[in-house]
Amino acid sequence: MLIKEKVAQAKEILKELEIDCWLTFARESAINGDPSLVFLASADITWHSAFIIARDGRTHAIVGQFDQKTVEDTGAYDQVTGFVEGIKQPLLDYLQELNPARIAVNFSEDSEICDGLTHGMYLTLHRFLAEIGFADRMISAEQVVSALRERKSAGEIENIRQAIATTQDIFASVAGFIAPGKTEQEIARFMKDEVNRLGSELAWEETVCPSVFTGPETAGAHYSPTEKKVAAGHVLNMDFGLKHQDYCSDLQRTFYIRQEGETEVPAEVQQGFAVIVQAIAAAKQAIKPGVLGHEIDAIARGIIIEAGYEEFPHALGHQVGRFAHDGTALLGPAWEKYARKPFRPLEPGMVFTIEPRLTVPDRGVATVEEMVVVTKGGAEWLSTPQTELIVIG
Amino acid sequence: MLIKEKVAQAKEILKELEIDCWLTFARESAINGDPSLVFLASADITWHSAFIIARDGRTHAIVGQFDQKTVEDTGAYDQVTGFVEGIKQPLLDYLQELNPARIAVNFSEDSEICDGLTHGMYLTLHRFLAEIGFADRMISAEQVVSALRERKSAGEIENIRQAIATTQDIFASVAGFIAPGKTEQEIARFMKDEVNRLGSELAWEETVCPSVFTGPETAGAHYSPTEKKVAAGHVLNMDFGLKHQDYCSDLQRTFYIRQEGETEVPAEVQQGFAVIVQAIAAAKQAIKPGVLGHEIDAIARGIIIEAGYEEFPHALGHQVGRFAHDGTALLGPAWEKYARKPFRPLEPGMVFTIEPRLTVPDRGVATVEEMVVVTKGGAEWLSTPQTELIVIG
Repeated sequence: MLIKEKVAQAKEILKELEIDCWLTFARESAINGDPSLVFLASADITWHSAFIIARDGRTHAIVGQFDQKTVEDTGAYDQVTGFVEGIKQPLLDYLQELNPARIAVNFSEDSEICDGLTHGMYLTLHRFLAEIGFADRMISAEQVVSALRERKSAGEIENIRQAIATTQDIFASVAGFIAPGKTEQEIARFMKDEVNRLGSELAWEETVCPSVFTGPETAGAHYSPTEKKVAAGHVLNMDFGLKHQDYCSDLQRTFYIRQEGETEVPAEVQQGFAVIVQAIAAAKQAIKPGVLGHEIDAIARGIIIEAGYEEFPHALGHQVGRFAHDGTALLGPAWEKYARKPFRPLEPGMVFTIEPRLTVPDRGVATVEEMVVVTKGGAEWLSTPQTELIVIG
Repeated sequence: MLIKEKVAQAKEILKELEIDCWLTFARESAINGDPSLVFLASADITWHSAFIIARDGRTHAIVGQFDQKTVEDTGAYDQVTGFVEGIKQPLLDYLQELNPARIAVNFSEDSEICDGLTHGMYLTLHRFLAEIGFADRMISAEQVVSALRERKSAGEIENIRQAIATTQDIFASVAGFIAPGKTEQEIARFMKDEVNRLGSELAWEETVCPSVFTGPETAGAHYSPTEKKVAAGHVLNMDFGLKHQDYCSDLQRTFYIRQEGETEVPAEVQQGFAVIVQAIAAAKQAIKPGVLGHEIDAIARGIIIEAGYEEFPHALGHQVGRFAHDGTALLGPAWEKYARKPFRPLEPGMVFTIEPRLTVPDRGVATVEEMVVVTKGGAEWLSTPQTELIVIG
């Protein structure tokens, strides 16, 4: 069902981009899968396989003989060719028949989600295409694959909403569990037990889902929960996400552990948190189709810096989909590692996180991560924004 | 632990192969992971990351700042550099200091298990290395990665033995469940329930683990169990594997469903099965270090063909490890899709399947898959070979 929908969507994207065909080339997907294969086949493929969607509507898969029937059953292909000894001849025969001016192939320097082709497989494909004089027709399929992943359908958005709802429920439950003396690991364990009880699934690898960081001098993001204990006066943050029907949430929440006799949250904690909330609101306000990711990043980054905090060492926000990091366009600064991602115009249907971060000296890290979807006129919250610190005790 | 062991093993392999350094370049491993990363890092990496093992023993990882502490904790690296904006400068600085004559990089046209580098990442690396005049020093790390995966330690072999033992137990249990009228799906369900009961884990994707094929005109290997019912007179085969501590088994067994009043298995079924067993025994007998995979394949293939059956449309056997298909050297024919894999000399510590197949007309497919490990003097069974048909009823 998903495969037929996505193959149909791909045909429309090819027309829009005026690209003759999209070729996804892969082998042994249990080992080196292309992230687009979930849209093209219902199971792992074993030998060299080519999935070819043409702008004129023709769809053809060429796969090892033992994978043929499984691919046929998707109902997404006009023709499925099975081979025994090698893919070269059936592939070249079909491409010569199709005779495309440009062949969009599954590699991209800028975008990992569009970069499933391994270099060894590129060499093989290049060698094959050179035999029929087509080698120089290869271009990156980045635009095709990006559009396919980024323009989320109503069904995809609904799955993300469901994943967010469960994530928010678990954040609400854990607030009753956090207390001075609990370790980061105990807090993570509580959340995982909730995930199991609810029959949900983590959005990324379990060693860092959730991450839990309490107090000053934490290891920084992407580190496993430790035996460090929650103490009064700590700022505590967590990064956590779930999957619903293969679509992810990715949220962060910030907590404060009240000290004995305190009637109010200390001013510097309140201030840090307020700056985060303000940065998120300002960024969300500015999101609309056509703006560039680095422009949005700069808004939030500027607010953090102007308030006197150190700049956060990562992008403001990434897209979310079947992976917690999913998509090409990025709300990020023009740093080398982000390549041209921050320069891709935003489009309706893109789902982004917004996640600035700052350190409250001697207290810990304040970081909130919300999720929004780009709409025709702006952006809509998918998560229920955290506007107040969650105060423990 | 595994990481320290494998990094130490890699240094020895570099000395043996006289290669100055092995560079594994990867990003967003949750999306496009390199299969070697399990030997190099304990968790997913996010941004461009380089793991550099030098022949002189130096080990250096360069990763995004938020992944730094996790990589440091492996204890496998002399130095872990964390970057914020981009990997280029720290990577080039270190490579210039190391000044390797040849840099073995994680790509391979022939071997998927050595081909984790995506083409986009290759383009990035090539662009970086060109800046310091090192681009033409890149070679494939296929030999390094193959040796690292293929020369199994005693601990790795023991894990595989454990996975095999549980697999064989479940094959034994399911023999009491198979009966005329049961569907392929019901048989698969029974086996999965056993897997859950024993707390084990499937070796490959659950839609085709196990595969179950009963009777004539089946869909061929790699197809999901159907609603087709077992009937008297059928030959039935299953392909099934489990993981133990991340190491796989991969076995096939053949069953015969007795017909009413039959006192003996029909001659053509007995004959087909006997040819399979003979082919496996002859192949196993010929395996020893230094022989080439295509030589072993030809022995079994020849026996099947000489007995008057159609040639099987796949390799005789593949290596098994952390994936059911794992390793470069292959017991296969010189077909295009196998590239140079059948021409790699066998080495001690390689674990292979042996799995010829033939069709018994009007009865079904006889196929048995055993597992062996190459030793100094020959090969040793890891599975307990099936030497008699499992007769049901």
